[in-house]
Amino acid sequence: MSFIATPQSMHFEQALPLASGASIRDYHLSYETYGQLNAARDNAVLVCHALNASHHVAGYYPDQPKSEGWWDNMIGPGKSLDTGRFFVIGVNNLGSCFGSTGPMHRNPDSGEIYGADFPVVTVEDWVNAQARLLDALGIERLAAVMGGSLGGMQALSWTLQYPERMRHALVIASAPNLTAENIAFNEVARRAIVTDPDFHGGHFYRQGVIPRRGLRIARMIGHITYLSDDVMNEKFGRELRSAVGQYQYSTQEVEFQIESYLRHQGDKFSEYFDANTYLLITRALDYFDPAREHGGRLAQALARAQAKFLLVSFSTDWRFAPQRSREIVHALLENRRDVTYAEIDAPHGHDAFLLDDPRYLSVVRAYFDNVAKEFQA
Amino acid sequence: MSFIATPQSMHFEQALPLASGASIRDYHLSYETYGQLNAARDNAVLVCHALNASHHVAGYYPDQPKSEGWWDNMIGPGKSLDTGRFFVIGVNNLGSCFGSTGPMHRNPDSGEIYGADFPVVTVEDWVNAQARLLDALGIERLAAVMGGSLGGMQALSWTLQYPERMRHALVIASAPNLTAENIAFNEVARRAIVTDPDFHGGHFYRQGVIPRRGLRIARMIGHITYLSDDVMNEKFGRELRSAVGQYQYSTQEVEFQIESYLRHQGDKFSEYFDANTYLLITRALDYFDPAREHGGRLAQALARAQAKFLLVSFSTDWRFAPQRSREIVHALLENRRDVTYAEIDAPHGHDAFLLDDPRYLSVVRAYFDNVAKEFQA
Repeated sequence: MSFIATPQSMHFEQALPLASGASIRDYHLSYETYGQLNAARDNAVLVCHALNASHHVAGYYPDQPKSEGWWDNMIGPGKSLDTGRFFVIGVNNLGSCFGSTGPMHRNPDSGEIYGADFPVVTVEDWVNAQARLLDALGIERLAAVMGGSLGGMQALSWTLQYPERMRHALVIASAPNLTAENIAFNEVARRAIVTDPDFHGGHFYRQGVIPRRGLRIARMIGHITYLSDDVMNEKFGRELRSAVGQYQYSTQEVEFQIESYLRHQGDKFSEYFDANTYLLITRALDYFDPAREHGGRLAQALARAQAKFLLVSFSTDWRFAPQRSREIVHALLENRRDVTYAEIDAPHGHDAFLLDDPRYLSVVRAYFDNVAKEFQA
Repeated sequence: MSFIATPQSMHFEQALPLASGASIRDYHLSYETYGQLNAARDNAVLVCHALNASHHVAGYYPDQPKSEGWWDNMIGPGKSLDTGRFFVIGVNNLGSCFGSTGPMHRNPDSGEIYGADFPVVTVEDWVNAQARLLDALGIERLAAVMGGSLGGMQALSWTLQYPERMRHALVIASAPNLTAENIAFNEVARRAIVTDPDFHGGHFYRQGVIPRRGLRIARMIGHITYLSDDVMNEKFGRELRSAVGQYQYSTQEVEFQIESYLRHQGDKFSEYFDANTYLLITRALDYFDPAREHGGRLAQALARAQAKFLLVSFSTDWRFAPQRSREIVHALLENRRDVTYAEIDAPHGHDAFLLDDPRYLSVVRAYFDNVAKEFQA
């Protein structure tokens, strides 16, 4: 059971200072809200998105088949995050290509399309922009902030940047920073995009072309890291594409089903995702590292947090492995914070945070049941 | 202590039938030999190479600094594979770009450079070509066949194609076939090469260009899979390239040391490796699957083997994980074969099979000490 979602947009004239020293003015944020803000204005939950997602978190758009939001299995009437009780806000981040101001929009200073000149944005910048949106919506304090993967980094950063503005933080399939291997995969994907002759230094819009080759490769690499070896073997194994069941002996044609699947994912992605956005978002991932200003001591970095936490990780996630969530848990416990941690034994790798795992959805449901008691009591 | 190596070449006029149904004639194989073949001609060890290697297994070339062979730490006078006792043969495979006939050579049928028309070659084809080389060298039976990674697949295949032609097989950091994830990484690398506008369908030689962009991406992807997450974190972690120790906030410039390292690896590789060879060798990896003709039953496939085996795997190798070696061990034990298995606790990932791990080198040394007893007794 889902519901109709209505995208909205909020304009911000005042310049937002960014971590890089640059700033951005005259921008807009796309967002959606589900459920009703209560009279005390204390039942709001902000949902932060990951790389390939947007403000369209739940519900569907009328007359658009398969338009359910990316966390529609989690959020809605009677679901784990129950829009019958909570006022849920999804917001598209700056630099994205799904509605909020991004590289394909016009720079008010120059009158030109931003392209590669769109300022580098960080997780912290996004959180600041989200805080301004909450100000505009008249929400002083969130019941919870929530996100998976890069969205989890934003939820964690919220608790450090605005420790008094939320009661709970749900940090799912996330990490306190990227490992060298994580950065390495991002970098290969970026190089594939940047070295595509159709990238034109990031100003490909002017040329009327799109660096699709690079985007395809970037997505294929990303996709491999989202899945577990196990689930790939189960879904595709060494199955051939040809019904004949014989090798075709070709180096360039599709031979195995996994190749066909990956090519399809790459093709789809290159049709709708913006190349500059891909660079910006992977860089925001690379840069996130709250412990950095504290000499690498995560516990010291998290001392500011006042929220109560739910951390969730998935056993076969090798992108943001359970160990990375445990680092956050340990650092919070060192600060004697209130932490619930669930490590879900799931075969699906990093993608598990988006999937219908009943144990996972139950953990989140139980957590929100308790959150709801606080404002219903 | 190393020694001078002298590359040799052997010409084969007779056509070699290939698994694909095609054949190749009038080809040559580059090879090197170290040590002396004994009078009984029973002390020969054939060393098979992996993706980025050649017949130049050990020793160095005079006046060429840093020209040591790729397994020079393993093979030489007094080393684990002691050239004072064994006659060691390194051979470059068909389709390679290091000397043996490959895509950059002329097709005797058409008079044109092969390019993308070089026939698809399999592990089995390589083994057949190697067997012909042994025939020409007057070696009926090997003391051992040995290889790491893709080279280990050749060693394993030798025991199935020519079960009576060797007494021992050393299969190191290898696997009985590729997983879906392994194939996926190969496919992304191939797509990066094939979609590089300078690839020209594999006939880039005619255009006087090289698909370097694609080769760089392919190598960067490959390199990530050769290293463990641990060793990457230890070597590079999140260290910045800038001495200032501050983020530069750029999406296209190098920010982290790991990026600089990977770009350097990609650049180097694109200077010397052939794009068509990369496609051919990764495809040979994809296709290798001796259990395939036996309905996936590896034990049934390995029933033909008569050799004694040493299997070695490395704990942090996630490309060909220890589990994959154990599959081979179990299948051999099911056939009551003589198997020694060593799982080396090493931090270096797949690359460990090329590195100076004293436990690893000792295991191989001890194994060859026993092999040597057989022909000295």
